[in-house]
Amino acid sequence: MSKSSRRRFIADTSKAAMAGTLILASNNLQQMETKDVFVHHVYFWLKNKDSKDDLNKLIAGLKKLSAVKPIKQFHIGKPADTNRDVIDRSYAVSWLAFFDNGEDQAAYQTDPIHLKFVEECSSLWTKVIVYDSVNV
Amino acid sequence: MSKSSRRRFIADTSKAAMAGTLILASNNLQQMETKDVFVHHVYFWLKNKDSKDDLNKLIAGLKKLSAVKPIKQFHIGKPADTNRDVIDRSYAVSWLAFFDNGEDQAAYQTDPIHLKFVEECSSLWTKVIVYDSVNV
Repeated sequence: MSKSSRRRFIADTSKAAMAGTLILASNNLQQMETKDVFVHHVYFWLKNKDSKDDLNKLIAGLKKLSAVKPIKQFHIGKPADTNRDVIDRSYAVSWLAFFDNGEDQAAYQTDPIHLKFVEECSSLWTKVIVYDSVNV
Repeated sequence: MSKSSRRRFIADTSKAAMAGTLILASNNLQQMETKDVFVHHVYFWLKNKDSKDDLNKLIAGLKKLSAVKPIKQFHIGKPADTNRDVIDRSYAVSWLAFFDNGEDQAAYQTDPIHLKFVEECSSLWTKVIVYDSVNV
């Protein structure tokens, strides 16, 4: 199978192909594939930081939020065990979403599912930091 | 082709399969695949923030750093055009790397390539924030 038809096959059969939206190191580290990606990373601090209920509500909200169409990959995270001076582990939840471009990210901001998420969940957090990054 | 053999095919043929290390929304949004992932996101602020040379040195260093074996996906980014109150766009470079687990991330920290990166590039930055996240 040629390289191009293999690529098409992957693109056709699985969302795994969406990994192509990131820069991918190949297994042998001799190849990279580069494609533009818009990385939207949000960190949430809870108002009631010891409330397991509020934490679960926010996570449930993010799971619903993940249905927004132009999201190519997402990850809902919590702080890892790592603990060095430079590490900020004070946030409650990490929301990482990949888009193909800034237009898709802008469309996500005004998507009804996103507006509903803000309506339902914004009372849960006291602080949010967003980092939006594009390819260098 | 059965679902399982299709999965094997993708796993065998491309690092695109590494997308499986993230939570993936399927195209029809009715399915998700979940696998553990360790998300390591670092933001760098340059000492000489207007130095294009220093910026390029840091980016070149990160490209070399991306060769560290257990890195499954990575992205080298700069702030996007988005500009809202909650967005921090003061950093110079974003370094996002995915690992299968915390052990792999710990191994990366002490990898000779990583140590060399710190040796060669740490004089370039004045501030670093690291967010390490694992699945909720």
